[in-house]
Amino acid sequence: MGCFIVDNGDELIALSEQAAAAGKRQKVLLRITPGIDPHTYHAINTGAVDVKFGVPVETGQAMEFVRAALGMKSLEVAGLHCHVGSMVFDEDVFLRTIDLMVGFMADVRDELGFTFRELNVGGGYGVRYTDDDPMADIPARIAEVGARLKARIGEASLPLPRFLMEPGRSIVADAGMTVYTVCSVKRIPGYKSYVVTDGGMTDNPRFCLYGAQYTVLHAAPRGRLRAIFDLAGRCCESGDIIQPAISLPAATARGDRIAVCTTGAYNYSMASNYNRFGRPPVVMLRGGESFLAVKRESVEDVCALDV
Amino acid sequence: MGCFIVDNGDELIALSEQAAAAGKRQKVLLRITPGIDPHTYHAINTGAVDVKFGVPVETGQAMEFVRAALGMKSLEVAGLHCHVGSMVFDEDVFLRTIDLMVGFMADVRDELGFTFRELNVGGGYGVRYTDDDPMADIPARIAEVGARLKARIGEASLPLPRFLMEPGRSIVADAGMTVYTVCSVKRIPGYKSYVVTDGGMTDNPRFCLYGAQYTVLHAAPRGRLRAIFDLAGRCCESGDIIQPAISLPAATARGDRIAVCTTGAYNYSMASNYNRFGRPPVVMLRGGESFLAVKRESVEDVCALDV
Repeated sequence: MGCFIVDNGDELIALSEQAAAAGKRQKVLLRITPGIDPHTYHAINTGAVDVKFGVPVETGQAMEFVRAALGMKSLEVAGLHCHVGSMVFDEDVFLRTIDLMVGFMADVRDELGFTFRELNVGGGYGVRYTDDDPMADIPARIAEVGARLKARIGEASLPLPRFLMEPGRSIVADAGMTVYTVCSVKRIPGYKSYVVTDGGMTDNPRFCLYGAQYTVLHAAPRGRLRAIFDLAGRCCESGDIIQPAISLPAATARGDRIAVCTTGAYNYSMASNYNRFGRPPVVMLRGGESFLAVKRESVEDVCALDV
Repeated sequence: MGCFIVDNGDELIALSEQAAAAGKRQKVLLRITPGIDPHTYHAINTGAVDVKFGVPVETGQAMEFVRAALGMKSLEVAGLHCHVGSMVFDEDVFLRTIDLMVGFMADVRDELGFTFRELNVGGGYGVRYTDDDPMADIPARIAEVGARLKARIGEASLPLPRFLMEPGRSIVADAGMTVYTVCSVKRIPGYKSYVVTDGGMTDNPRFCLYGAQYTVLHAAPRGRLRAIFDLAGRCCESGDIIQPAISLPAATARGDRIAVCTTGAYNYSMASNYNRFGRPPVVMLRGGESFLAVKRESVEDVCALDV
């Protein structure tokens, strides 16, 4: 049987009722907000007390959440879940998370006499989008996290829980890149220059949303002279910029191919049909072979739900 | 025959080649950047010299663009197009646009001996999202614009062109609203409270993208006590906020309906399948009757292009 991660009291009641109606005992993890600031992007900081996810330990609400869950006969409380943020590069964010979560596990044991057998601390390690990003040595970090978990669990005299992390982006982001075709090149003397592509915020809204940075490469550079361009999309929106102020060959021209690296995570998944543009295909490469994973979206596909 | 609006020299060449290959003479308007700052949102300011749209007058490039177009036998140059920005409330933005565009039309007549017979100044008038937005008296504004056009055309001794504007958003935005169902209500004492809905940045990314403001209403308010909530979506992202710090009944609870007003433009069109959520249906109302315009997107629809 699968497991639901329950974010809050309303979800707890709803899931309990559904499980009871289905005559099942549903395994759950309870999402807790440990109250940690992971110093990452504001928009994807998910561990601080005031975020929309989970039930805070600091306010005493997490203890009441666990007490309520333990009282629901149709739910089987297996453990705790938390998620302190994406793009974590700070050495000790997960170590502090372990300290807080094991502390709360001990408090629950002391106050409610219950011992969790599972702990999931979510994601996620940072990804290197540009040369300015630090390098996360993930195996070394995970070894540190494991050692800290064992130490804190030992100090608290708790049994070692099944331990999970969710490093999604750091696994898949650099396995993908987006290849654009240049539609037009615009040079405005004294102002700036644009390379306008056949994509944009419709397939990658991350610069528009977060000012996200990427490494951008010309597929077949010609000449030694470089120039600075904004890499733009084709939407009817000035803000439709994939990446500003990038260096490309000065001779970049219509028909050239431009690759934006590290788009294997949070790109196709965030794509839209803004301006009724179809979404691009997803092509997988393995051992020199290619195969289609997701088809290109046609005008008919885009209009399929119109009555 | 339809009309293409040609944004730049690369598009001019591409369209000319396509028209020639098809044995057609294609009507076009030429997109010009008049060099006007409409003082609107940075992201949707489209009239300044350094934007990605159009060919600037100021740099002399617009005159060369017109000269090139007039030399292409497969293109019929009907007129000029420009677009100074969305959400225009400033009294004189379109008046200054008229001044600049008619000035350029006269320059083209003087330098190239060509007279445009069409002028499209694009959009767009502002929409009242909240009580803090000004009220645009659009009929009065259009009368002013028409009078200014006639005056400037007369002063320049040009024939009156066919004149077009594109007031898209101001026509449809307040014809739509988004109705959400509350999934959970989260109160974090000493911090803040959230109303989490069954929608979010997947159906309306405008707060995430621009910090856009909306009027938010509870469909069936209970009690006189109000409280301040962030209206959030259900994405795995802290920034998935539809509107922050809104006043709703303090007793707002799971299952309640919340309406976000003025979402008839730039909402469904910008929706995504982020987190693999299906997009909501679009329901039209007329004279007390309702009918479905766009079907709800199912899991099968969302996965339809997966190979």
